[in-house]
Amino acid sequence: MSIFLGLIHHPVLNRIGEIGSTAVTNVDLHDLARAGRSFGVAKFFVVTPITLQQELVGTMVKHWAEGAGGKRIPTRALAFQRIEVVDDVATALDMAEAVDGVRPKLAVTGAGLREEVMPWAEARRSIWEAAPGDPGMMLLLGTGWGLAPEIIEQADIRLPAIDGPPWAGGYNHLSVRAAGVIVLDRLLGSSRE
Amino acid sequence: MSIFLGLIHHPVLNRIGEIGSTAVTNVDLHDLARAGRSFGVAKFFVVTPITLQQELVGTMVKHWAEGAGGKRIPTRALAFQRIEVVDDVATALDMAEAVDGVRPKLAVTGAGLREEVMPWAEARRSIWEAAPGDPGMMLLLGTGWGLAPEIIEQADIRLPAIDGPPWAGGYNHLSVRAAGVIVLDRLLGSSRE
Repeated sequence: MSIFLGLIHHPVLNRIGEIGSTAVTNVDLHDLARAGRSFGVAKFFVVTPITLQQELVGTMVKHWAEGAGGKRIPTRALAFQRIEVVDDVATALDMAEAVDGVRPKLAVTGAGLREEVMPWAEARRSIWEAAPGDPGMMLLLGTGWGLAPEIIEQADIRLPAIDGPPWAGGYNHLSVRAAGVIVLDRLLGSSRE
Repeated sequence: MSIFLGLIHHPVLNRIGEIGSTAVTNVDLHDLARAGRSFGVAKFFVVTPITLQQELVGTMVKHWAEGAGGKRIPTRALAFQRIEVVDDVATALDMAEAVDGVRPKLAVTGAGLREEVMPWAEARRSIWEAAPGDPGMMLLLGTGWGLAPEIIEQADIRLPAIDGPPWAGGYNHLSVRAAGVIVLDRLLGSSRE
């Protein structure tokens, strides 16, 4: 039973709610690879169908996973070695199934998810109390203005929006990096009490 | 009772455990300002005694809080408006006291903090169940290789290290941004169950 992370650059929403693509952001890969490794994620899929972007990410991953960057900071190499660049979610799911022997459940996150959500405690329990052979979980994060509806509709699990305390007045504008690490901590962190 | 965040660039540890200073990182300010605002932080203090760094941060904060950046992305302006650049922790505490009428307790975080720590649930309860007039909390995050001992020693509250699940094998290398947003969520997030 493994946990996978997918950072989606297409299809995502743009500022005016249309379906579009985003460019890969350097620091997203650093922060989510490090957090992924810290929280025991088996593979971190960087999802973009754009060839030039895939090449760019490939160069960066190579630098950190096996090149000069990783030699200088060996812990960074351990984090980047779990990155895979893929065209789409279907390919990520196939690769995850090849790792685990069973297709993971698809879990989506998003600031707008408030209905038909699985409570955090239940999602967490399904991981921590999984039996051998149970399906793992693929956590999808959307860049830009969030995951496109066509991705949300495929989900087996909708995780609830992350909210602050009442005195934050409903302001909710986390970076995808911040939202991603909070999701990882809520599901996979230990000694949280 | 307000919550304050302080991002320390001096005194912090460097790679070989000496006391040093770090340069301010652009994306730290974006991610922590946005997360701070989302989790109801009253002020986010960027702590550096280096004049050129203070000027750089001042220019950046102005661009986002009231300049072209903030006009383009108004939610970013709301986040950056809570940033204050200060020389040291003592100044941050004085400014926090001026906001709140009472000096906040100083809480430190760090990957190495495992002893004499206050459990998260207790720290969280002290915020959510505070009575009017109770002291708030100043959460300090260390850049570089973490807060210098002279800062840790001043703390009223030591928050426990953030750990992943057992299958992460003890790897723990979160960025300061990632650790900071997890601390905010653990103390201030709602609907966490």
